[in-house]
Amino acid sequence: MSPLDLEQVGTAGRAFEYRYTWKDCALYALGVGARLPDELAFLYEQRGPAVLPTFAVLASFESLVDALNRVRADFARVVHGEQAVTLHRPIPPRGNLITTATLSGVYDKGKGALIVVESETKDADGQPIFDNRSSIFVVGSGGFGGPRGPAATVVEPPDRAPDFEVSQATSPEQAALYRLSGDLNPLHIDPAVARTLGFERPILHGLCTFGYAGRALVAHACDRNPTRLRALSGRFAGAVLPGDTLTTRAWQTEPGTYVLAVTKDDGTPVLTHAVAEIAAPSDT
Amino acid sequence: MSPLDLEQVGTAGRAFEYRYTWKDCALYALGVGARLPDELAFLYEQRGPAVLPTFAVLASFESLVDALNRVRADFARVVHGEQAVTLHRPIPPRGNLITTATLSGVYDKGKGALIVVESETKDADGQPIFDNRSSIFVVGSGGFGGPRGPAATVVEPPDRAPDFEVSQATSPEQAALYRLSGDLNPLHIDPAVARTLGFERPILHGLCTFGYAGRALVAHACDRNPTRLRALSGRFAGAVLPGDTLTTRAWQTEPGTYVLAVTKDDGTPVLTHAVAEIAAPSDT
Repeated sequence: MSPLDLEQVGTAGRAFEYRYTWKDCALYALGVGARLPDELAFLYEQRGPAVLPTFAVLASFESLVDALNRVRADFARVVHGEQAVTLHRPIPPRGNLITTATLSGVYDKGKGALIVVESETKDADGQPIFDNRSSIFVVGSGGFGGPRGPAATVVEPPDRAPDFEVSQATSPEQAALYRLSGDLNPLHIDPAVARTLGFERPILHGLCTFGYAGRALVAHACDRNPTRLRALSGRFAGAVLPGDTLTTRAWQTEPGTYVLAVTKDDGTPVLTHAVAEIAAPSDT
Repeated sequence: MSPLDLEQVGTAGRAFEYRYTWKDCALYALGVGARLPDELAFLYEQRGPAVLPTFAVLASFESLVDALNRVRADFARVVHGEQAVTLHRPIPPRGNLITTATLSGVYDKGKGALIVVESETKDADGQPIFDNRSSIFVVGSGGFGGPRGPAATVVEPPDRAPDFEVSQATSPEQAALYRLSGDLNPLHIDPAVARTLGFERPILHGLCTFGYAGRALVAHACDRNPTRLRALSGRFAGAVLPGDTLTTRAWQTEPGTYVLAVTKDDGTPVLTHAVAEIAAPSDT
């Protein structure tokens, strides 16, 4: 494998445009498991539709791929490590968003390299809508003698019952549906590719799990008002197979702050060190 | 309500172009309930993807709406009565199809009017790909003294066990997903609109049920080769609610011909007088 191009660290890529309609918002919502009748607002154009805050990851996807290309990451060996979304304004249900991504760092984790990409997304008028921060692990690309990078943020749930807990089954076709929103990595649909990477069958996108966590927050911590969710971050801790049930537990640790944990049926953690910021109803 | 414009009978509309990619084929397949791992070929671009034969109804949809507009049908009171698809060539997994529809007849059924629209769809080279025949019932538009039209074709299953039988649950979000393929009639998502038309909640598209029947045939009568299904027709006999289980039973009545019946959990018929023509493997 060719080495990563470390000269790219600190550089920004070109601007990427993401044009979308309400159908993209609804397709995304179904992709991350939106249910009827409770979540009709996210699926029906006559209701806006309302837009899930984690839809933010879609608009930045192309700029992320570009950043990984610039650093010459091998796409056949990338695994999503962490994701953080920060929302500045409500996401419009249709429009044209412009994203610019910076390759913030490439860290040497021994077994692999960790690539951190930070992006800013604005609307056509230049108003900031949201930011994304993605940490991508490239298996086998470590050991180049680079910096290990900052220590990962550790966020542990308090030792008490969660303030809310919600379980939802993903469908066996969840990844096939989610990928129609843009991330066509064959790991999520091709049995042969999945086996090559050591999985028994294609796995769910980490960002799909991220979307399930966001939906749980909107429903149970935001009184179904998606614009109250202002930030969500977390670490992808384990593979989810389409058909697995995801359980999101959340603890309010201070006003407006929740710590989350998402696990599978058997208790295996899949999203850890996760934090959400929720605005008060009066702030929307 | 304004009367139907009977002067339009016999006229053809303009040509409508339907541009699509593999994503439209995969979205349609998920909309009509395609399952993994068995139906991967319909969901994965690296497999073509394979295209379900009932995808044919999508390309003709705009020309059908145009025909109904020309005759001044009230869209708030239209119900799909019958559908027939005839396939001449395999449907490409991406491309540009051209459809021209003729308003074949407007019949006076007393309680309502029956509008029959026949369309031909060709590829960009002018090769015929498939034909559609749609019978649309307009509630309350009958009694205008017009012809009753030809007697409906009666097709009854033989009095013996079916040659195959397959049950599949639709999901509560099935109509929300199916409609992203083009038929945005609010009857299929808006609870208030559904109640106005006498349904307890939004109902599934008749053409979604049609797609389930087509999938059952491809799996159980075509050895999973979608190009062997050459014709499918049937009458929509009852409303399906998203979440209902659809059972398709099929009887081979002569070589290459199947009679079908689709019912709900409680035995209520939803697709009746249905016939399919299947080509021999050597004809593909």
